Amino acid sequence: MTIGLIIGSTRKNSNSRLLGEKLVAGTESHILETKDLDLVDYEDSRHEDAPASLDEHAKLLLEFLLENDVIVFAVPIYWYGIPGKLKGLLDRLSYVFRQPDFKHKKPIEAIVLAVGGDRPRFKGLPLIMQFQHMFDLLGIHFSHYILAEGNKPGDVMNDEKALAEVKWLHSYLKGEVQ
Amino acid sequence: MTIGLIIGSTRKNSNSRLLGEKLVAGTESHILETKDLDLVDYEDSRHEDAPASLDEHAKLLLEFLLENDVIVFAVPIYWYGIPGKLKGLLDRLSYVFRQPDFKHKKPIEAIVLAVGGDRPRFKGLPLIMQFQHMFDLLGIHFSHYILAEGNKPGDVMNDEKALAEVKWLHSYLKGEVQ
Amino acid sequence: MTIGLIIGSTRKNSNSRLLGEKLVAGTESHILETKDLDLVDYEDSRHEDAPASLDEHAKLLLEFLLENDVIVFAVPIYWYGIPGKLKGLLDRLSYVFRQPDFKHKKPIEAIVLAVGGDRPRFKGLPLIMQFQHMFDLLGIHFSHYILAEGNKPGDVMNDEKALAEVKWLHSYLKGEVQ
Amino acid sequence: MTIGLIIGSTRKNSNSRLLGEKLVAGTESHILETKDLDLVDYEDSRHEDAPASLDEHAKLLLEFLLENDVIVFAVPIYWYGIPGKLKGLLDRLSYVFRQPDFKHKKPIEAIVLAVGGDRPRFKGLPLIMQFQHMFDLLGIHFSHYILAEGNKPGDVMNDEKALAEVKWLHSYLKGEVQ
Repeated sequence: MTIGLIIGSTRKNSNSRLLGEKLVAGTESHILETKDLDLVDYEDSRHEDAPASLDEHAKLLLEFLLENDVIVFAVPIYWYGIPGKLKGLLDRLSYVFRQPDFKHKKPIEAIVLAVGGDRPRFKGLPLIMQFQHMFDLLGIHFSHYILAEGNKPGDVMNDEKALAEVKWLHSYLKGEVQ
Repeated sequence: MTIGLIIGSTRKNSNSRLLGEKLVAGTESHILETKDLDLVDYEDSRHEDAPASLDEHAKLLLEFLLENDVIVFAVPIYWYGIPGKLKGLLDRLSYVFRQPDFKHKKPIEAIVLAVGGDRPRFKGLPLIMQFQHMFDLLGIHFSHYILAEGNKPGDVMNDEKALAEVKWLHSYLKGEVQ
Repeated sequence: MTIGLIIGSTRKNSNSRLLGEKLVAGTESHILETKDLDLVDYEDSRHEDAPASLDEHAKLLLEFLLENDVIVFAVPIYWYGIPGKLKGLLDRLSYVFRQPDFKHKKPIEAIVLAVGGDRPRFKGLPLIMQFQHMFDLLGIHFSHYILAEGNKPGDVMNDEKALAEVKWLHSYLKGEVQ
Repeated sequence: MTIGLIIGSTRKNSNSRLLGEKLVAGTESHILETKDLDLVDYEDSRHEDAPASLDEHAKLLLEFLLENDVIVFAVPIYWYGIPGKLKGLLDRLSYVFRQPDFKHKKPIEAIVLAVGGDRPRFKGLPLIMQFQHMFDLLGIHFSHYILAEGNKPGDVMNDEKALAEVKWLHSYLKGEVQ
């Protein structure tokens, strides 16, 4: 089983990265960090006469989904939602999920780690529900999520509840608990 | 009273644009269309030694908020959330809402028109709740929203419930009803 | 087509009743008002050795669902949710939805009118999402909902947005619009 | 510090009771079980000429809130919401929260344990958001919640994620972690 970790922060040493790396430590995993992408604008051309083919980043996202069994989204909560750049990447799912390769690659499991500074366990819930609708449409099994508190770099390491949940989820990914 | 219409679609002749223009027809209004912006990546540098100053698009957003009394967001629902490009613009609110000019410019009223193809009146609710948390933090009064159904270009003109709501909201913006 | 109106208020001349009656005026409709029921406690005995048979009020609810094509719930929002007494009636759905008669009676369409005093269009959304999950499990089509503002008796008649939506929905129920 | 545990199940040996008792084991705690109450209908008479005084169960609820510092709600998820009988008790908060004794008794902290059989970590979220709005209005600090899976009696003891969270929360209530 391989794990794909998608890190959605725009800054180095982000809290979401810390939490994501803690979760996948010691597992076979790949990392995709949106900060490193030179993402051009996504355009919805599904209804054009000549719909666009997969662009470079749609292909990248497709490949990442195909080569991993579990996708972990480590996401800072920006204005109670997904950061714009990560969302720009995910908007390409409109092309990705129509690809035969994607349809045949099943099952995929998804986990979301979301870190925010303003009561994330409550105000982060719309983000969780958005992911839920997304994964339901994609046929991806949304198994777990963790909402953690952090604002300044490193903060999240003080959220002991979140760390206990990450510890459990780590055992789960290693197949030690169910 | 002036109305600022922010259109978040990535395509021409979008349903959200149709609905937004119908709403503000005959009022004093300005349009900001994210499709036309050459938006560079947003970076969260709030915790850097030298936080970035307002970039071009943060300034644009600030100006738009300052010069209008009501902001109408006409938003296609992409994967049950805000399109990545619009979200990239809105992420700049982290800088905007700290500006003295913004703090002194009150009150602002916000309206959201959101158009989606997959049961938008239900699956669009996380997006509405995200805007609610956003406006609450910003001190913006979120007065109304309309969730409308549309997928292919022009579809939304068949959503008679949404059109009745837009008609009412139009009278409201003209000061004819409360 | 017959419409069943379930009124969940605990008081006479409630705002939810006013709105519900306005909606169904001139249609063939039946009314079930929880205020008038002498409801005994619901007990979950599904896992007992001898599960309870349908009690009087489970039968009443089943009959009401069978004899109507559209069910309109006119509900005051109590503490951001369904009033306890109406919820006590709805808890009996655990028995009702296992009855062969219910399974064969399809389709049913549901409409929710919810009236609250504290920003109902936002803080009433969890109630709408609860109904959505409920109707999804029951196989009932949740077509429309209206969130209206009202606190003191009669207040809701000042919510012009809600009245415009009720007017449209009335035409919809009469088959005049879609 | 004393803990008040409110158990909202309608059956004996419920999963929510199991989880609640596990959480408060070894702490100074009181239990209020709605199953044991002979609850009469709640009536909203706030707008009557002579509003009703506190009934027996409103008094009981008020006393319970006054004598405990942390209130733990152990709630089975019935139709994606609060069971009718518990909701009937909570509807009395409309009287309780106007009492001077309640206003002066602060702070109160609340914890929710909710157990459901149908993807509770996702479909239980409207219930969590309802409690959030409720506690916000009451001025009660909603510190933590746990969503657990269980259907048949005892099931919840197989939800290892929930048990890990209860274990952490137990340490938290004992003052061993933050």
